Order: sequence, then C-alpha cells, then structure tokens
Amino acid sequence: MLRTHRCDELNLAHTGHNVTLCGWVSKIRDKGGLIWVDLRDRYGLTQLVAEEGQTAQDVLETMRSLGREFVVRASGLVVERHNKNPNLRTGEIEIRVNSLEILNASALPPFLIEDETDGGEDLRMQFRYLDIRRNPVRSKLELRHRMAQEVRKYLDSQSFIEVETPVLIKTTPEGARDFVVPSRMHPGQFYALPQSPQTFKQLLMVGGLDRYFQIVKCFRDEDLRADRQPEFTQIDCEMSFVERSDILAMFEGLFRHLFLQVKGLDIGEIPVMTYADAMLLYGNDKPDLRWTAPLLTLKGGQAYGAVPGVGLGVEGVGFGVFEEAEAVIAVPVPGGASWTRKELDALTDWVKRPQMGMKGMVWVRCESADGAYRSSVDKFYGAAYLKDWMTRAGLGSGDLMLVLAGPEALTRKAAAELRLEIGQRLGLRSPDTYKALWVVDFPLLDWDDESGRWVAMHHPFTSPLPEDMGLMQSEPGKVRANAYDMVLNGTEIGGGSIRIHDKNLQARLFELLGFEADDAQAKFGFLLKAFEYGAPPHGGIAFGFDRLCALFGGQESIRDFIAFPKNNAGRDVMIDAPSGIDPVQRKELGLP
Amino acid sequence: MLRTHRCDELNLAHTGHNVTLCGWVSKIRDKGGLIWVDLRDRYGLTQLVAEEGQTAQDVLETMRSLGREFVVRASGLVVERHNKNPNLRTGEIEIRVNSLEILNASALPPFLIEDETDGGEDLRMQFRYLDIRRNPVRSKLELRHRMAQEVRKYLDSQSFIEVETPVLIKTTPEGARDFVVPSRMHPGQFYALPQSPQTFKQLLMVGGLDRYFQIVKCFRDEDLRADRQPEFTQIDCEMSFVERSDILAMFEGLFRHLFLQVKGLDIGEIPVMTYADAMLLYGNDKPDLRWTAPLLTLKGGQAYGAVPGVGLGVEGVGFGVFEEAEAVIAVPVPGGASWTRKELDALTDWVKRPQMGMKGMVWVRCESADGAYRSSVDKFYGAAYLKDWMTRAGLGSGDLMLVLAGPEALTRKAAAELRLEIGQRLGLRSPDTYKALWVVDFPLLDWDDESGRWVAMHHPFTSPLPEDMGLMQSEPGKVRANAYDMVLNGTEIGGGSIRIHDKNLQARLFELLGFEADDAQAKFGFLLKAFEYGAPPHGGIAFGFDRLCALFGGQESIRDFIAFPKNNAGRDVMIDAPSGIDPVQRKELGLP
Repeated sequence: MLRTHRCDELNLAHTGHNVTLCGWVSKIRDKGGLIWVDLRDRYGLTQLVAEEGQTAQDVLETMRSLGREFVVRASGLVVERHNKNPNLRTGEIEIRVNSLEILNASALPPFLIEDETDGGEDLRMQFRYLDIRRNPVRSKLELRHRMAQEVRKYLDSQSFIEVETPVLIKTTPEGARDFVVPSRMHPGQFYALPQSPQTFKQLLMVGGLDRYFQIVKCFRDEDLRADRQPEFTQIDCEMSFVERSDILAMFEGLFRHLFLQVKGLDIGEIPVMTYADAMLLYGNDKPDLRWTAPLLTLKGGQAYGAVPGVGLGVEGVGFGVFEEAEAVIAVPVPGGASWTRKELDALTDWVKRPQMGMKGMVWVRCESADGAYRSSVDKFYGAAYLKDWMTRAGLGSGDLMLVLAGPEALTRKAAAELRLEIGQRLGLRSPDTYKALWVVDFPLLDWDDESGRWVAMHHPFTSPLPEDMGLMQSEPGKVRANAYDMVLNGTEIGGGSIRIHDKNLQARLFELLGFEADDAQAKFGFLLKAFEYGAPPHGGIAFGFDRLCALFGGQESIRDFIAFPKNNAGRDVMIDAPSGIDPVQRKELGLP
Repeated sequence: MLRTHRCDELNLAHTGHNVTLCGWVSKIRDKGGLIWVDLRDRYGLTQLVAEEGQTAQDVLETMRSLGREFVVRASGLVVERHNKNPNLRTGEIEIRVNSLEILNASALPPFLIEDETDGGEDLRMQFRYLDIRRNPVRSKLELRHRMAQEVRKYLDSQSFIEVETPVLIKTTPEGARDFVVPSRMHPGQFYALPQSPQTFKQLLMVGGLDRYFQIVKCFRDEDLRADRQPEFTQIDCEMSFVERSDILAMFEGLFRHLFLQVKGLDIGEIPVMTYADAMLLYGNDKPDLRWTAPLLTLKGGQAYGAVPGVGLGVEGVGFGVFEEAEAVIAVPVPGGASWTRKELDALTDWVKRPQMGMKGMVWVRCESADGAYRSSVDKFYGAAYLKDWMTRAGLGSGDLMLVLAGPEALTRKAAAELRLEIGQRLGLRSPDTYKALWVVDFPLLDWDDESGRWVAMHHPFTSPLPEDMGLMQSEPGKVRANAYDMVLNGTEIGGGSIRIHDKNLQARLFELLGFEADDAQAKFGFLLKAFEYGAPPHGGIAFGFDRLCALFGGQESIRDFIAFPKNNAGRDVMIDAPSGIDPVQRKELGLP
C-alpha cells in the first residue's frame, strides 16, 4: 500500500509514530511560517502541517504548490495538536510532514467538494466522479452497500438462494414499455430487457428452488417523471408452499433486521390494514402512519365499508354543498384550534388548486379557552352537530377539523393529501421516524373505461383471495386479490402476491383480462406450459431498492443513492449516452 | 407454511410426531397392500407409506392416483422404518400418511427428474424448470449462491463497497461488439450494454471510493463459441493507492477465503510466475500446476529467456528435423517408459491433427529394467545426448520424454497441449485438486500484422511496469504491463492491472495504439476529463464468475452454473428469445 494508515485512524495513541497517508487536498491554510493542509480520503480527514525552519525547504515548497483536490502522499510524525478539534475523529493530532509527493495534480474543480456545494444538479451529474467525493453523496452509496449486504445476510439465513435471472429475455408482463436489443445473429428479432424477473422467479418455484431472491436491475422505457429511472433495482423474492401470512412474517423479519442492523431501530410489529380500511381511514392505499389520526367520513365511503347513518351526519339542515356532495370527509388537526384565519385561508387556496380540485374547505374547531364549538358553517350546523363530528374524529378542546366535500374519489384523494400537508405543518413527518404497514386485500381487477375491459391491478399472475373465488364469474369487480403492499412512511416500497399455480385458473384470468388464447400463448406460453408439470403453490414480493435506500437515508430523492443516475430525459450526461453508433454496427444489425 | 418440516429434517428423534410435508412425487412403489411414495423437495427426500387396512380408504385412493412430479401435501405420523436407508438423511423413518392433498397434478415430464437423466441438452434447456429440480443442477445453483455470498462477505470485511454501475451506457473499450439498445426518447441514438464496468470503476476511484467491487452482468455480442454466453457475470474490483503486490495479496486472501469456506480446503500461498517463465516452462500463459513437471526447451525459446548452448543440445548429429526446426521442445512423462508402441503411435497421430499441426513426435525413454536409454531417434542421438536431455528434464529410470519440433509459436503451443493431454492420461488433472497461480509481467502491447499497429494486450488503461517506462518510445514491444492474471488449474479465471492515472501517459498510449485524438476523445473523453481532477493511483481485477463457479464445482462447462443459459446461437429456447416485436414498438423506435 502507498499508505500506512487511512485518514480517519490516527489519534493520540499514535503520537511519535512515523506514518504515511494518501488522499486529496481538501483545504490549505498558509499563514506564512506555518502551512496546514487537510488531507481527505474516503474514511476521514487528517491535518498535515509544515513549518518554516522546521520542515525541509523542498517539502515546504511542494506544500505551497498544492492546489485543491491534488492527490498527495505525505509522510511524517504524528504529533499532538495545540488546537484540538473535537468534531474530527483525528482532531487530537496532526502530521508534521517530512516527505510530500504529488501523486497527481488537479485542475480547479467546477464546484466545491464540500458537504454544502455550490454546484447545481446538472453540473454535479456531469462531474459525478467529483460529486461522489462529497460526504453526503459518498455516505449514501455506503448506506446502499450496507443495506444490500444486510438484505443478503438475512435472506441467506432464511435459506433463500440468490439466483441470477437473464437480462436478455423476451417481453415481460408488467405492461410498461420494454427496452429492446436487436439480435445480430437473428436478424429482425429482438431481446427485451426485463421489467422484472417475474416469470423467471415463478419458473424457479416450478423448478423446486423453494426460496429465491435477487437484488436485480430492472428496466422500463417510460416517459420519465421526476425521480424515476429507466434502470432501477429491485429486491426480488419468491417462496413456495406458503400462505400470505408466511410471506408477511418473513419480510417483516427482513425489515426488523434491516432497521436494527442499519439504523439501530426496533420498529416493532408491522400492522396489517385492508385496502378498504386504508381508503376509508386515510384516503389512499399507502397511508403515512407516522401519525395515526384518521379521516372521518361524514358522508359517502360505502365502497370502502362506511356505514351510513352513524352520528348526526351532514344532511337535513339545508347546507347545499354537503347535501349535494357524494362524499364529505373531515381531516383532523389536533391542536389546530389556534390556527389563524390567514392560515385557514391559505389552506383553502391550497385545496382549491387545480391538481386538488376542491371547491372550498369548511373548518370546525373547539376553542381551548371555553370549549365552544365554532365553524365556518355554524350558520347551518349547531353545536350538537359540530360536537358530534369532532367527538367521532377523536377531537376535543383546542383541536381543529377541516372538511372537504365533492365527488367520492376526488374528495377522498384531496382529503388524503390535505392530511399529509397538515402532518407536514405539524412536524409529524420526520424522516427519522419510521412507520411500516402492510396493506392487503386489494381488488384483483380494475375496470378500464378506455379499453372497456378489466385490467389486473397487480399483475395477471396474482391469485384471488380463496374466499372470493366464487365471485370470479359473477362479480369479478368484487374479487379481492391475495396481494399485499408494504408501505413505509406513506410510500409504497414493495408489493407482491400469492400467485396462481393452477393452469386453469390462470387461463380463466387471462380470459377475464381479454387476452386472446393465442396472445396469452405467444407471450406466456412457456409459463403456462411449466404449470402443467407440477407447479407448487407459491408467492412472492419485490421491493424498490433505490427508494428503500432513500427512505433509510431520510431523503425524498433516489438520485443520490444511485452512483451514476440518468437525468429526466433518460440521459447520462457524464458519459453522454445514449449516442450515435458506428455505421458498420448499424448495418450488421439491419438498422436504418 | 403449508408444511411443518422440510423433506430432509426428520429422523428417529421425531418418531411419534405428527408432521406435514410438501413436495414432489419422486417415486411410487405399489405392492398392493402397501404403497410407498418418495417425496422430494429442494432439501431432501422423505418416504411416505400407506397400508391397506391401516390407512383410510380415501387416502389410499389418492395415493394410488398420484403420478410422477405431482405436488402433494401429506400429513402423518413419523414411524421408524424396517428397512433403513443409511444413504438418505431421513432414511431411518417414514411417514404413515393420514391425510393427503394433491396441490397440483403433473403431466409426465419429458425426461427423468433424477441425477442421471435421459434428457438430452436441448430438451433439458427447453424444460429448464424441470431440469433445475434435478440434484446435479440444483446443487450447482446452490454452490453459485454460496460463492457469491462468500465473495461479498470477504470483500465487505476488507472495506470494499459494492456499487451498482449502470447497464444502459455507451460503448466500452473492451473491443468486442456491443449489444445496443435503441432510445425511443432520443431517436437515432443508442445505449450500449457494458462489456465490463471498466471505465465506471475507474471513475469511482477518481471519486475517492477507495475500494469498489460488484458482482455484475456483462454483455458481449460475439459469435458464440462452445461454452460462451452473450451475458456473463464478473466479480469486478478496483482499489486506490495500491501497488501490484497489494492487489495480489488482497485477492489471494479472497481465494483462500473462498476455498476454505466453500470447499474446506487450504490452498496455501499462491505462487507468482512471470509471463516469460510460463511460456518457457509450460508453453502458455495459463499453466496447469496440478503437476509441476515443466517442458524442456532443447532449442529456441530465446524470446522467453531461454539460454542457448546449455547441455548437449540437438545440433551437429545430422538429424535434419531438429537441425531445421526453430524450436525443439520436450514434454516429460514421469513413469511413461512402459508406454507401448501403440500408445505412442496414437499420441503421434494426436499431435499430427490439423489443430495441432505437428509433423511428428520423437520419444526418448530410460528403461526401468536396465537403465538403458532408447529413442525413436537413437540412430542420430547416442546415450549421452538422451541422458543429457532426460536428466535436464528431471527424468530418470522408468520415465519417458516426448519431443516436438517446428516453428517456435506452433511447437510451444503444441507442447503445452501435449503436456495437458499427458497430465490427463496420467490422472494428474483431478477436478478435486486445486492449484492457483498468478501470472505477471505480460507484454503491454501486441503487434497486429493485419492492421499494422500495436494493440493493447489487456486494455488501453493498463499501466506499463515502472521500470519499463523508458522503453515506451524506443521499444514499445518490449514494455511489460503492470498486469496480472489469476490461473486456476490451467484456466484463466481473472485478470487485471495497475491502471494509468496520468492523463499524459494515457494520451501517449492512445497514440501508440493508433487512436486519433478525436476518436479517443469521443470514446473516452469523460475518462480523460476525469483524470484532470486528481485521479489517484489505482488498480483492479475482474474474475469470470460463471467459470469460477464451474471450477469450484469440478466441472468443465459453465452452463449448469447459470440458471437460464442461452444456447450456442445465443437463443433462450425455453422462453423463445430473441423474437419478433410489436409493429407499434418498432415504429416508436424508428426501426424498419
């Protein structure tokens, strides 16, 4: 090694030792007679010092010639520092340099290599190799490495085998657009890059591998939204001879392991909520449970099991907005009674934005001074009504309730978003708090108005709940899927299902989904064929690894958890890809 | 779980327990009153039994209806077996079935799901999911999993970070043909799939990550030879602030760890041999050292350091074949004096095959009976010559020597292959014996007659040996590379080099290799740019993971160490890929 130590290792115990360090020049302070250099490597920072009169002249001169991000190799004596830096692991010592070699010079970097940089996103991506030198980026890649190691350690301990499935395959059933690879040896034919290893992992179960996993790259040629990548990484898993509860228990175990090993947190048991309850109580299928206060459905919600006629309701007092609305949904704001008119007006404007689509917002509060109920609609609703609503929402003195009304789907969605916004304002969405949740019993099918047919909500290999099997012919829309999502802090981070292992049921489902027999055969014939030879009952799950790492890192964006991400146009601006190719290769591939 | 135990778990200690097992019907023996079924899962085999009069009639009937590879769930009592099977982990017990459920039926498989199958390669690949149920295939995938886990465990313990580099990139410098992916969002532009993450791992070193690794899929669109795959897996590594000896020590450590953990073997220290010595002593750069007896160069070999004039040589006695030959090389055969004329004639035919290209073969032996030297050319060479040759090859009484003559390169290659063939015949190439070796000091450049220019023997980022730097302008052909290969049992399983980190040296090398400055800029501009910002000294290595697994599994072919391999035409016959794509997608991609 060109060094004896790393830049994070030395302390008072090394005083008097001769050491050699390598790294990048992070900072230079030249006070005339004394020069200090902060030397940085992946592990830490160590201070080098040279002094007029003490240090050899050539070393002093080399030290003076250094620039930021020069790569150097410095040897010297470990000495105790006068001004100790308690914030630095090596802050008790410095190195009195007696030999200094410039291993490589550096041009002036286009942005500061510091925790807070002056480089914009574009510049950072173009010079990603410099960006990675910064602690915030490097530590995210280190976290990702640690996560991957711990995922493997846990699954290995549970007898899962990691199997590499192929990358050059055939179209997959996820329904997004495939990236394709023209075949030179088979002109006019193409490989597709996998959107997921779904069919392969099911074939591995047919192959008796019993427990499979893979941390694997997947590909989707979609029009990119912010924070989506054309290539992304999944933790992909499948198990045989299991029921849903087995899978939930196994992967609750994975998450308990990850949180404990990576973050030192005990997240406790992960609760299970039905899709209907999630929709009714939180307005969407990925509730953020860092605070649990649910929505109160004052009207509507029958599709999700709301029972009409409970409490005083909203009808019969002549308030047309609520009378005419399909749904009236209240969002609780504990401690919100003191919110000012200005704050409430701002929130009203917020729900009236086009992307929310609400016509207005009603507020109800219970004054903390006198316990009186007040509301923007107290002309219509007396204290009995207001008290009934507040009480049913678990609210009392000092609390506030915001009420939205309108069409069911739109209003429920808006109420869910308003709840999140309120959680944000109340400081209830700390990235350091983690609440995981299983959501189960999703509908198996969704009616697509455009194509006039059923589409699979998860994917076409998802099994119906055994108790709903009887509805498959009569009321397919009511059939619940034997599927589950894992939600972490309001983000869906994984999902899966018990699969169909019976070829007749699979054929029936393809039929329901409007696949022609020929089409199903062409696309999934190999899987249907495999099901003829003793497919075991099986199920699985896949987690979005990029997003999971970001959540563990307490960040919203996945981009810095990927070493070399692409931009929103699917372009790698560092290497400049995609790009043109050689005319010879074009010709070989039969491309225009 | 649908089971209480796996099929490898039960023994006499479980006698009297009620258990439930799931698995595949492996064998059925119906003796009228008694029926046995061997139930198989990934873990093992357990015998089920049902008996007329004891077992309920419906269970007996279900048992009789079973076919091979049916998937069943059986519950019953663990009882001691009368005829114990000591070769089976569960051979002391059987399950007296009291409940039997057919989870899935199976059509008759197209080949036997047994260790020795009647299925040919094509059929096995088409029904790979059935092939994987067979122990020999499954155990290879399990070995691969274990290997990957242990590689990660070791490298993690050595502070390596696993970083996922992108799959959708730009052309890479390895020189083989890239697979390309047309971009829909950027018409006329293409991503390329990586032949290796070479440039990215170097950028990670520039980024200060210090120690990187990845077990990663790579892609080459080559005309496939037997046992090559268009997608293959590498263990890819890079380290900063290292010299060659550091890398050799680190990865010797990896191999000692792997052999110890996976095979329980201590492989001792891994020797280091120069390229010149390997060529001189073993005729190629990947000697199989399971037996060490080297070749004896009687004439020629100066390019590899052979010293002419040692011993009696082959000249001056009028044997034209040797006199006229550029090289005369002897292959020792310890204990071969008793080989018959027939055996020697067969070997002579073997070396005369077109792919070997030898004109004939001379033999020399020392009879074990009387110590006399005999040879097919003893008309020309007296006992003094024969004894001199044999002695210099370390041979004596009872030994044999086979001598080839001809042009240097051809003869050396043939001698190397003859040595391997002899090793095979002498039983010295046991797949259970492992000898690893580092080969170092390769030439940096190779002269390509066809294009009339130098080509990089490793790749264009390989650094010259420091002591040869002075020859770069004057005698580039003599410059040795700071490169190394790891050889295991005569197979190159990995290679790497200390890289160039100086942009001027890199530019000089590109120039030597005949890259136009524009071309180098277009292809590797981002790397050259990165080198301007403080690139550290670094080096790395990559191992072929598929081949490594095959060697650890004692096999010649990599195919069964890959779950879903492609055939020699690059085709996945199970899923039928590559295949045609939808006209809509063609149009979107601007394809004809």
